Amino acid sequence: MSKTVGIFDSGLGGLTAAAEFEKVFPSKKYIYFGDTARVPYGTKSAETIRRYATQDCNFLISKSSSVIIAACGTVSANAIEALRQNFSVPVIGVVEPAADKAVEIASGGNGKVVVLGTSATVASGAYEKAIKRADKDISVVSVACPMFVPLVENGYTKGQAARLFAEEYLHGLVDFGADAVVLGCTHYPHMSEVIADILKNSVLINSGREAVDAAAKLIGAYNVAEGEPEFYVSDAPESFARFAGTFLGRNVEQNAKCIDIERF
Amino acid sequence: MSKTVGIFDSGLGGLTAAAEFEKVFPSKKYIYFGDTARVPYGTKSAETIRRYATQDCNFLISKSSSVIIAACGTVSANAIEALRQNFSVPVIGVVEPAADKAVEIASGGNGKVVVLGTSATVASGAYEKAIKRADKDISVVSVACPMFVPLVENGYTKGQAARLFAEEYLHGLVDFGADAVVLGCTHYPHMSEVIADILKNSVLINSGREAVDAAAKLIGAYNVAEGEPEFYVSDAPESFARFAGTFLGRNVEQNAKCIDIERF
Repeated sequence: MSKTVGIFDSGLGGLTAAAEFEKVFPSKKYIYFGDTARVPYGTKSAETIRRYATQDCNFLISKSSSVIIAACGTVSANAIEALRQNFSVPVIGVVEPAADKAVEIASGGNGKVVVLGTSATVASGAYEKAIKRADKDISVVSVACPMFVPLVENGYTKGQAARLFAEEYLHGLVDFGADAVVLGCTHYPHMSEVIADILKNSVLINSGREAVDAAAKLIGAYNVAEGEPEFYVSDAPESFARFAGTFLGRNVEQNAKCIDIERF
Repeated sequence: MSKTVGIFDSGLGGLTAAAEFEKVFPSKKYIYFGDTARVPYGTKSAETIRRYATQDCNFLISKSSSVIIAACGTVSANAIEALRQNFSVPVIGVVEPAADKAVEIASGGNGKVVVLGTSATVASGAYEKAIKRADKDISVVSVACPMFVPLVENGYTKGQAARLFAEEYLHGLVDFGADAVVLGCTHYPHMSEVIADILKNSVLINSGREAVDAAAKLIGAYNVAEGEPEFYVSDAPESFARFAGTFLGRNVEQNAKCIDIERF
């Protein structure tokens, strides 16, 4: 089988990274897996997240992925070291590329970064560690935004409810004056408008986009085949096309295939 | 091993039924299992829900449960027939007892019932079928309330956000004039206050409570042992005690044990 790039997430949020991949590599073949039978990961323990992410990578490798993008903030924050120990293919997470971008922006500003993520991501401290490793003088404030994923998944990315929760999570950060805000969960770019409206003077960093840029440096070396993407989920393939259109920002006609991820 | 009653849910919402069980049987031994590694079920397909629920019952039977209460609206609506075919122990769901109660109330009133549930529950049409089977003249309106579970799990059962979503889901039902509102998901009793405030003249039916009452008729015949309850989860046992206190309405000192549900 010819080589592919594997992209996975706990569900369909990682398609925001696939959308970025399509912009950078319009014809390279990628395999997307969304673990819709066990979504979300962000509320689960680090041990369970590692077990699930290992199965996800096993599946992508069975589909000839020679580079894997963990398009999931929660996996990147809790499982990336375990994945790198277990697999010989390079695994790119969203944490380090987004942290590097935040450091780049903050170094030229006030030296202040805000990280928004799921409960599991914030509890891991992974973004903060990666930022401090690059520049220990940068001030980082991390905030868990557990209602953002259900809001995005149910279509409440604008309007009163989105505003209400964004205000609750972010109002204490207005005076902090962050140079950059890391959208540390691949669902969160859908909340950009309301976040930008509250944290007006900060640059928002799309962590999926940064991961794709980091992967781009590797992909050239791996001779990835040209071809149409293939989409796999672990549950409800029939509702894939509807969601995928929104996340990928284009018309998606093909449906996803359903696999039993517990076998991998 | 002496006989126990098994109570399970996709997560910790089913503890609202366990709380009702404790009121009716203060000293009978029950085993609670919450599938916290795969929560929620309400967004998943019927096939996946059946597979998960079968594993949940296998685990409870390994703990000598001679009566099982599926304290989960989604399981009861999508998997109860499959469970009854697969297992010889009686499995009581929340749908039929709550439907019977709704019929009892509506028959003496305007003959109108509202059912609130997860997307999977509403899609199954299970409550509506059970109500129509008992009395085909009753009018039923079912509404999926997908934001209620994340609201409850994140502590937003009162206040502006709870009110905002409850208004969105329920405002079209005010003029319908339901005699009874079935809280068809075991999380929803926590939203009772805001629901009652909008649908002022309807009786709210706690489906977990009705299931316990239905199970009570059986439990006498099964010689269930006396003893302290045991709590099991498939992830994050350390956060059990904190949540369990809220759901059970009493101080919970024991922590849950963690099991690998995929083995069952």
